[in-house]
Amino acid sequence: MESRNFLRFLAISLSVSLVLFFTWVHLPYAPQPNTTTDLLYCSTNSPWCTSKNRFQSINKPSTADNILEKPPNPKHHKVHNHESDTPHHPLDPLTISEINRVRTILKSHALFKSSSPFAFHSVVLEEPDKTLVLQWKKGDSLLPRKAAVVARVAGKSHVLTVDITTGEVAVQETGSRSGYPTMTIEDMTSSTWAPLSNADFNRTIIQRGVDLQDLACLPISLGWFGESEENRRLIKVQCYSMEGTANFYMRPIEGLTVLLDMDSKEVVEISDKGRDIPIPKAANTDYRYSAQKINPEMMFVNPISIEQPKGPSFTVEDEHLVKWANWEFHLKPDPRAGVIISRAKVRDPDSGEMRNVMYKGFTSELFVPYMDPTDAWYFKTYMDAGEYGFGLQAMPLDPLNDCPRNAYYMDGVFAAGDGTPYVRSDMVCVFERYAGDIGWRHSESPITGMEIREVRPKVTLVVRMAASVANYDYIVDWEFQTDGLIRIKVGLSGILMVKGTSYVNTNQVPGQQNLYGTLLSENVIGVIHDHYITFYLDMDIDGSDNSFVEVNIKKQKTPPGESPRRSYLKAIRNVAKTEKDAQIQFKLYDPSEFHVVNPMKRTRVGNPVGYKVVPAGTAASLLDHDDPPQKRGAFTNNQIWVTPYNRSEQWAGGLFVYQSQGEDTLAVWSERDRPIENRDIVLWYTLGFHHVPCQEDFPIMPTVSSSFDLKPVNFFESNPILRIPPNVEKDLPVCKPAASA
Amino acid sequence: MESRNFLRFLAISLSVSLVLFFTWVHLPYAPQPNTTTDLLYCSTNSPWCTSKNRFQSINKPSTADNILEKPPNPKHHKVHNHESDTPHHPLDPLTISEINRVRTILKSHALFKSSSPFAFHSVVLEEPDKTLVLQWKKGDSLLPRKAAVVARVAGKSHVLTVDITTGEVAVQETGSRSGYPTMTIEDMTSSTWAPLSNADFNRTIIQRGVDLQDLACLPISLGWFGESEENRRLIKVQCYSMEGTANFYMRPIEGLTVLLDMDSKEVVEISDKGRDIPIPKAANTDYRYSAQKINPEMMFVNPISIEQPKGPSFTVEDEHLVKWANWEFHLKPDPRAGVIISRAKVRDPDSGEMRNVMYKGFTSELFVPYMDPTDAWYFKTYMDAGEYGFGLQAMPLDPLNDCPRNAYYMDGVFAAGDGTPYVRSDMVCVFERYAGDIGWRHSESPITGMEIREVRPKVTLVVRMAASVANYDYIVDWEFQTDGLIRIKVGLSGILMVKGTSYVNTNQVPGQQNLYGTLLSENVIGVIHDHYITFYLDMDIDGSDNSFVEVNIKKQKTPPGESPRRSYLKAIRNVAKTEKDAQIQFKLYDPSEFHVVNPMKRTRVGNPVGYKVVPAGTAASLLDHDDPPQKRGAFTNNQIWVTPYNRSEQWAGGLFVYQSQGEDTLAVWSERDRPIENRDIVLWYTLGFHHVPCQEDFPIMPTVSSSFDLKPVNFFESNPILRIPPNVEKDLPVCKPAASA
Repeated sequence: MESRNFLRFLAISLSVSLVLFFTWVHLPYAPQPNTTTDLLYCSTNSPWCTSKNRFQSINKPSTADNILEKPPNPKHHKVHNHESDTPHHPLDPLTISEINRVRTILKSHALFKSSSPFAFHSVVLEEPDKTLVLQWKKGDSLLPRKAAVVARVAGKSHVLTVDITTGEVAVQETGSRSGYPTMTIEDMTSSTWAPLSNADFNRTIIQRGVDLQDLACLPISLGWFGESEENRRLIKVQCYSMEGTANFYMRPIEGLTVLLDMDSKEVVEISDKGRDIPIPKAANTDYRYSAQKINPEMMFVNPISIEQPKGPSFTVEDEHLVKWANWEFHLKPDPRAGVIISRAKVRDPDSGEMRNVMYKGFTSELFVPYMDPTDAWYFKTYMDAGEYGFGLQAMPLDPLNDCPRNAYYMDGVFAAGDGTPYVRSDMVCVFERYAGDIGWRHSESPITGMEIREVRPKVTLVVRMAASVANYDYIVDWEFQTDGLIRIKVGLSGILMVKGTSYVNTNQVPGQQNLYGTLLSENVIGVIHDHYITFYLDMDIDGSDNSFVEVNIKKQKTPPGESPRRSYLKAIRNVAKTEKDAQIQFKLYDPSEFHVVNPMKRTRVGNPVGYKVVPAGTAASLLDHDDPPQKRGAFTNNQIWVTPYNRSEQWAGGLFVYQSQGEDTLAVWSERDRPIENRDIVLWYTLGFHHVPCQEDFPIMPTVSSSFDLKPVNFFESNPILRIPPNVEKDLPVCKPAASA
Repeated sequence: MESRNFLRFLAISLSVSLVLFFTWVHLPYAPQPNTTTDLLYCSTNSPWCTSKNRFQSINKPSTADNILEKPPNPKHHKVHNHESDTPHHPLDPLTISEINRVRTILKSHALFKSSSPFAFHSVVLEEPDKTLVLQWKKGDSLLPRKAAVVARVAGKSHVLTVDITTGEVAVQETGSRSGYPTMTIEDMTSSTWAPLSNADFNRTIIQRGVDLQDLACLPISLGWFGESEENRRLIKVQCYSMEGTANFYMRPIEGLTVLLDMDSKEVVEISDKGRDIPIPKAANTDYRYSAQKINPEMMFVNPISIEQPKGPSFTVEDEHLVKWANWEFHLKPDPRAGVIISRAKVRDPDSGEMRNVMYKGFTSELFVPYMDPTDAWYFKTYMDAGEYGFGLQAMPLDPLNDCPRNAYYMDGVFAAGDGTPYVRSDMVCVFERYAGDIGWRHSESPITGMEIREVRPKVTLVVRMAASVANYDYIVDWEFQTDGLIRIKVGLSGILMVKGTSYVNTNQVPGQQNLYGTLLSENVIGVIHDHYITFYLDMDIDGSDNSFVEVNIKKQKTPPGESPRRSYLKAIRNVAKTEKDAQIQFKLYDPSEFHVVNPMKRTRVGNPVGYKVVPAGTAASLLDHDDPPQKRGAFTNNQIWVTPYNRSEQWAGGLFVYQSQGEDTLAVWSERDRPIENRDIVLWYTLGFHHVPCQEDFPIMPTVSSSFDLKPVNFFESNPILRIPPNVEKDLPVCKPAASA
C-alpha cells in the first residue's frame, strides 16, 4: 500500500472505529457472543485480535482480508486448526475447548450471575503440583486439568481455580494486596480512544494543530506515586500525530497527558504543559520498506540463508514437547510471560539418561524506568509483563526475517477479556542455528609439530519470541547448545519513546539545562531509560533439592619466601544457607561464579554436579530504593536472588503489578530469609541495560542484545560434545540461487 | 591413521628427529640455504614450517605428503602462489621477494658479517608514517617499502630498518630495556628437544616410567622473577607422556622442570619435585574423531550450512583490501599480532562518502597468569603475543569447521629464524554470517492495531583467525555489521594446562589443602588461571584528532516537592584531558559509556560524531600490582586506557616482552599523563576471563567466548540500515542434500 493510500485507509478505519467506539463505550463490558467460532476464525487468521477488529470481522473475514493478514511465506507456514486441540502433557496450555468450558462453568457461577460488569484478565492452565508433574510419564493418564482465572467483577479482583472436569470453582483469598491484574487487550485499546469522548481533550488536540483523524494515542501505565492514585484503576493516555508517517511515535504531542479512569473510561484530568513545543516533522521517520527511497550507492549483500536440505533435526511431539540433539523440553506460549520452558532435560553422553536441568524458566517481569522527572514523563516506569502482558504483546513473527527459513512456528491460544479463546498465530519460532561458530577446536602448533587439527562446528537450537510493547520490541531467545549450555538472550529493537522539544540543535541549549536525553533530530529528544528483564529459573539439577554456591575468586598472598609469586587467585566455595546469602550484586573486583548444585550427587572424582549462571554485559538499577518506582521494581535491587520454591512466588513484581505499591515483590519475599540449602530452589536473574539514546536509534533502533548463560559445571564427567562429528563436504547441501532453480 | 599406526609414525619420526637434532645442536644457528625456493614450497604446502619438517622436506614434497597436508576441501581452497606477489597498498605485508631482498641486504651488513651466530626474530613491514598512508590513494605510486627487522646477533638484540629499494639499513637505538624479542619457531622447537642431550634428564624421565620415545615437551616462557633470571635468555621445559594418546597435555610428568639456556641450549637446572605423583592415564583423553567410539544413543543434527548460492558479497582487492556492503578495510596477517585491520572505513548512507573509523586495530598482547605459586607452576604467566608470536601460532584453518563453506582464506607470509620467507596457508578466513539474528524490527501491537510488521535480518562479515599457543586455542573474530558496529570476539578452546596429583577423588583431599584448581579426572587438576587479551585500537573518527569522553550515568535526586519521582539518571559528559583521566576500571554501580569523538565535527542537530566502546562480560586482574607477573602485565591494571598516538607504542607489554621486567608497558607510558584531548589517540581495551576449570573442559574445552563492541554513537545522522531490504522467498537459495545432488 502506498503511503497516501495507507493514510486514507487509516482515516476511513478511524471514522468507522469512532462510530463503533461510541456504541462500545455504552456497553458495560465486552458483549458475550453466542458462539465463539466466528471470533476464533478472526483471530486465527489475523495477527491482531482486539475488540476493534473483532467487531469488524464478526463474520468470517473475506478472502481479501485474509491475504493482507497472512504471513508472506505460506509455503513454510502450516496453518494449524486449534479447534480440535487436546492436551497431552500436564503442562500443556489450555486448549480452545478448555477455555470455552471455563467460560461456560463460570457463567453459572455466583460471582458472574449478577449484572455487574466483569472481565477476565487471565485464563491459563493452573499447573498441577510440581511433585505430580515430576512423577508423570508419557502414557500415564493426564493429571486433572484446571484453569487459573483472574477476573475482575464489579471492580474487585478475584483469583479462581476452575476444575475443568468437575466444574468445581475455588475462589482464592488474595488478601488486601495493592495493585490490579494485567490489563486486558480491551482495557488498552478502549483507553486509547476514550479521551475522544471528552470535548476539552478534542479542543486541545485541535489547538495543537492535529486533525482528530490523524490522532494515535497510547495507554501508559502510571505506576504508583501515592494516595491520589489509589483505590481506582487509572491510566494515562498520551497522543501523537500520525500525519505523514506510520511512525507516529516520532511525532509526540508533547506535554499532553490525560488521566483516565480505566473502568469508567471517564477523563479524570487533562494536563497540557507542552503548548509551546512543536510536533516534530514526519520527514524521515517512516521505517517501512515501502516508504523508502533506496540509495543506489548503498551496497547490499547477496542472498544468504541457513540451510538444512534434510530438514530440521528437532521434533515437536504433541504440539509442545521439543526434542533436539541431546535436549528435551516443554515449550508453551503464555499471555504474561511470553514463553515458558519447562522440564528441560539433557542427555548424559555416557549413560544415555535424560537428566533434569530446569523445571521451569520464563521472563517473570520487566522494569523500564525513564529518567525524566517532569510532569509528562516521571511516571513512565513500565512493568511490561505484569501491566501489559509480555505474551499478549508478542506479535506473529515474520517468517524469513524474524526467524530463518528452517524455523517451526508455534501459536498461542489465549482468552480475550470476555473469556473467549483466540489464537495468536506464529507467536514463537524454533530453529536450528549455525552461525559459523566453533564448538571446540585444537590444532597442534609448530612447537610440537604434530599434525593434528580437530574442529567441531557449533549448532544450536533457538526458541524465539518478539514482544512489541507499544513502541519497543523485545526479542527473547532461549538458545540450547549441545554442550549443555543454555543462553538466554534479550534483544531490544523497535522505536524509542521520544520527547518533543523546541530545540533543533544542541547549540540552542543553555549550558546547564538538562534535556534528560539526546537530541536525535529536530525537536526530538530520546529520553534516557533503563531496561531490566528478570528471569524466573527453577533449576532442578538432577533432582529438585539443590544448593546455591557462591564460588568467590579471591586473591591470596603467598607467605614471604615461599614462592617467587606474591599473589594468586583461589576459588572459595560458600554454600548459601538462607535467602540473604544469595542476594548478589556483581563486582568486577570481587568476582564470583554462581553455581546451583545438587549436594547429594557427585561426579566420579567427587565434584558436586551443577550448573552455573554466567553473566555477560548487564546494568544495575541505580534509583533510590525508596523511590516509588524502585520500590515496585525492587526485584532489580540485586542481579541474583535465590528463593525456596513456592508456587505462589512466580511474578517478581507481584501477582497484581498494575498500580501496585511494591509489597508483593521478590525483594519482599527474600527478606524473610528462608533456608535455601539442599532444598527445591528458584534462581532469579536480572539482565539490565542503560539506554542513552543516540541518533542511530532514530527513527527505529538497530537491535542491541545482551545475554546470560546457564552452563554445566561438573555436571558431566567430561566434555559432552567430544564425540560429535566434524562437517564434511559430502554432507553439506547443494544450493542454487532461487531464480535459477 | 589409526592410533597404533600414528604412534609408530611418531616413534619413527622421533628417532629420525633425534639424529637430526644432534646434528642440529652443533650448528651455531639455522643453516643458510643457497636458494629459498625449496623451503618455500615446503612451507606453502605444509601447515607447519619448522626446522624439523624443513629438514624432512628439503626437496619438494612428494604428492603423497601433499595429500596429507592439504585442507580437506580443495574445491574451496584456491592455492595461491605467493612467489610473484607484489605490494599494492602502503600497508601490504612484505612479500616473499621483499623478505628475500631484506635477507640479501642484511647478509652484507656489518652486523651479520662476523661469524657470530644470529637469528631474525621478526621481519615485517615497517609501516610508512601515518600521515603519508592517510594521504595515499589508490593509483598513487607506492610509498617507499621498508622492513622492520628484529635480530639477535651474538646475544644482543637489534632493531633495524631496511630500505628495500635503496638497501639502506638504519640501526635503531633500543636503549637498555630489559627483555628479549619474541622467540623464533626454531627457539621453541629446539628447546623442546634440548633436554634430551642431558643424561640426568633422560635418567629422570626413565625413572618416571616414561619411554624416551613417548616424550613430548613444551617450551614455557618463564617470565621474570628477579636477578637470578637476568642477563641470559632462559626457558623452562616441562614434559608429558604421549603414550596411548595424542592428547599428551593430559599426561604431565608433574613437578619436573628443566631450566634451559635458550641460546646455548645448555641445561642450567633440573627441578624434580613430583616423583610421587603418578602420570594420569591415557584413557578418554584423545579428542580426535578417529579415536572416538561413537555412542549410537547420542543424537546428531542434520547437515546445516550458511549458504550463498550467488557467492559472497565481498571482494578482496589486491590481496588485502576487503570491501563488503558499506565497509572497507585493509587486512593482513602478522606474526606477532595475528591479524591487523587497518584503515577501516564505513560508507555514510546519506552522503555516500567512505568515513574513517579506525586507523589500525589488533591484538597487542595477551597475559595468562596461572594461579598456583608452587615450584612447577608459579612462573606460568604467559604473554602469548610478545613471547610466542600470536600470529606465528595461528595454524591453517580447517575449512567447513573453523569457518563456514562460504569463507575466503588468506595466507600469511612470514620469515623464519634464518630470514627465509615461508607461507602459513589459510591463516585467516573472511566470511559473511547470517545467524538468524534480527537487524531491527517493529510490529504494531494490539494497542494501536495498525497492521505493520517490518523486520530486517542481520548479516555480518567476520574476519577470523585461530592461534594455537601450545595447548590453548584462541579464536579471534572481527565482526563488521552494516549498522556500523564492529564486534571483537575472543573464543577460548583447546586443551587445559593441567597438573598431576596423587588424588583420584575429592574425598581424599584433606580439608584445608589447596588444590589450586579442580580435580577433573583421576590424578588430573585443572589449574585456575586468567586470560587477558589487550587490543590496540587506533580510532580515527572522521579524522585523526579525536577526544575520549566518559559519559557517566549518575543518579540525580529531585528537589523535594518538584516531582513524584525521587531519583533519575543523568548522562554527564567528561572529556579526558590527559591519560590519567582515561585509565578506566568498570563499575557496575557507577557506570559510564566510553566515547571516542571527533570534537570538531557535529551532526546536523549538533552532537559530536563518535564511536563508543561497549564492554560485555569481562574480568579484571586481581593480582598484587607489585607481583612480578602483574608488573609485566600491568597493561591489565585497567580495562581501558587512552594514549596519544606514538608509533613506538604498539605492544602493550613492551617491544621486548620475553623476560622483561615491566618497564616498557602501556601502564608505564600512560603514567606520563600526556594530553589526549583533540589529538590523535589510541584506545586500549582489555578483555578478561577468569577460568576455574570444570570437568566439561576435559579432555578438550568447549569454546567460551566474550566480546566487546565498537559502536557508532551519533556518528550517523540516523539508523544507517533503515533502507536495507527484508528477505523474500524468491531471493533465497534452493538447496538439496548433497547426496541427492
